[in-house]
Amino acid sequence: MSLLVIGTVAFDEVETPRGKTGRILGGAGTYIGLAASHLTRDIRIVSVVGGDFPATYLDLFDKHQIDTQGIKIIPEGKTFFWAGRYHENMNMRDTLVTELNVLADFDPVVPENSRNAQYLMLGNLTPAIQKKVLNQMHQRPRLICMDTMNFWMDIALDDLLEVITMIDVLTINDEEARQLSGEHSLVKAARKILTMGPRYLIVKKGEHGAMLFYEDKIFYAPAMPLEDVFDPTGAGDTFAGGFMGYIARTGDTSFDNMKRALIYGSAMASFTVEKFGTDRLLEIDDTQIQTRLQQFVDLVAFEI
Amino acid sequence: MSLLVIGTVAFDEVETPRGKTGRILGGAGTYIGLAASHLTRDIRIVSVVGGDFPATYLDLFDKHQIDTQGIKIIPEGKTFFWAGRYHENMNMRDTLVTELNVLADFDPVVPENSRNAQYLMLGNLTPAIQKKVLNQMHQRPRLICMDTMNFWMDIALDDLLEVITMIDVLTINDEEARQLSGEHSLVKAARKILTMGPRYLIVKKGEHGAMLFYEDKIFYAPAMPLEDVFDPTGAGDTFAGGFMGYIARTGDTSFDNMKRALIYGSAMASFTVEKFGTDRLLEIDDTQIQTRLQQFVDLVAFEI
Repeated sequence: MSLLVIGTVAFDEVETPRGKTGRILGGAGTYIGLAASHLTRDIRIVSVVGGDFPATYLDLFDKHQIDTQGIKIIPEGKTFFWAGRYHENMNMRDTLVTELNVLADFDPVVPENSRNAQYLMLGNLTPAIQKKVLNQMHQRPRLICMDTMNFWMDIALDDLLEVITMIDVLTINDEEARQLSGEHSLVKAARKILTMGPRYLIVKKGEHGAMLFYEDKIFYAPAMPLEDVFDPTGAGDTFAGGFMGYIARTGDTSFDNMKRALIYGSAMASFTVEKFGTDRLLEIDDTQIQTRLQQFVDLVAFEI
Repeated sequence: MSLLVIGTVAFDEVETPRGKTGRILGGAGTYIGLAASHLTRDIRIVSVVGGDFPATYLDLFDKHQIDTQGIKIIPEGKTFFWAGRYHENMNMRDTLVTELNVLADFDPVVPENSRNAQYLMLGNLTPAIQKKVLNQMHQRPRLICMDTMNFWMDIALDDLLEVITMIDVLTINDEEARQLSGEHSLVKAARKILTMGPRYLIVKKGEHGAMLFYEDKIFYAPAMPLEDVFDPTGAGDTFAGGFMGYIARTGDTSFDNMKRALIYGSAMASFTVEKFGTDRLLEIDDTQIQTRLQQFVDLVAFEI
């Protein structure tokens, strides 16, 4: 079923203890779209890039059967650029450069033929932009998932609080869940956030996995223990893309299926961090995905 | 089957964001023994206390059918005392007082009738003391588990490296695994540590669960997400006690049973942190344990 993705399509430059990239393809929309493309068809992206964005990158989306009609190209503008450096433990990073460029005036327009999309993934962006996309839909999608971050809690909390009343699934990390709720305990934080709008809350904990909260239920998806993490950039977006890609493929929003979707998201994210940027995400095939899913099964399987 | 525990029996004084205790019963041996006593019989403790140690505490061990013959009482000495204060996030604590007292000259003597114990849990102590206990055994126990900490890696590394060649299961936390191996990746760290002696490595990650490494296999046991953590003191020792208590009860050291044992350990630890000191551990019953185990099953259950 159709999945509409809104998110940045960008240039990244990344330095980690394992090495340094040049200017590479990045952005939340990119990771979400590419991850989802391994699991479902009929994906459309809404984003904005500058005249400097290579046609080869757009071809790459095409090759992954991602509809790029909604990616507006502003010929005289420059593509959003982010550069960052990760610390040895990879859980912390310094932002070195953020050039918003064309993103500064981004006024998203959902193409007419995407306004009936059944599933909607709102990648991390200004809450006001996320809302604009929501308001262009002809009918409410069957499931709306929204990613956000502490930055918007700091500078656009009212907008954020409004948009989360309009969605189904919120994805944030553990510190953000604490900030948004004012509660240290994640169980209490989740309970509070679930009264603020979303029916589902996904708390991302990086190398410590992710948790899904729904009513009084909790599901815990581990992260795959990896020998080497090359580059954590895009892991959270890949996770969201895998999650929504699996939901869109199955058209099933039951709690049991959401649990599976969380595992799919975790599996996809475990690939992304194995190489720089989107490299790993671009090369994996279905057999590798199935093998990785089985590793997740084995990782937590026990019988009492 | 018989389980011999060596570990401190102590007084603790704990301050957490939830409150402050007076001088209460603590110590690694205490938590290990009490946790194991919920799962198996025939538990013996080797430790040392001073003349100030209340008979009521010894009665408490008796009530839990823990043999205290091996707890040496030094009438003119004072019991080991530790005081600490936890930070808001409960993952960090400051040690306020450490009075070794009778522990300073602790020369462990395993009672004759405990030298054939089938299972041995070496609680966190000077590696030299752990070795002394090992050397008093008439025959090698079927499984020897050893807990240790960064402090001994700093000041008694050679001793530590020797003792870990004599054991089967090593339990340390994630930072300690990194320190001992010099590897940041836990997968690489585990692989290295498994060449240093132990056949099994358990990496404790506090609120993020625990991981069991064996050959090229990895099992991940989550921690139970709790509404409130009152006092993390003793959680790691309780975990070890639950782990070895279950192994001793079943007499089964297969990898599949070790996985179960990890879940039992995690379940027991999830109780300990719900109240101060040993309070919760002393009040739980088998029904509560079974309910908690089922919560662990539900927490990670999914089907691909």
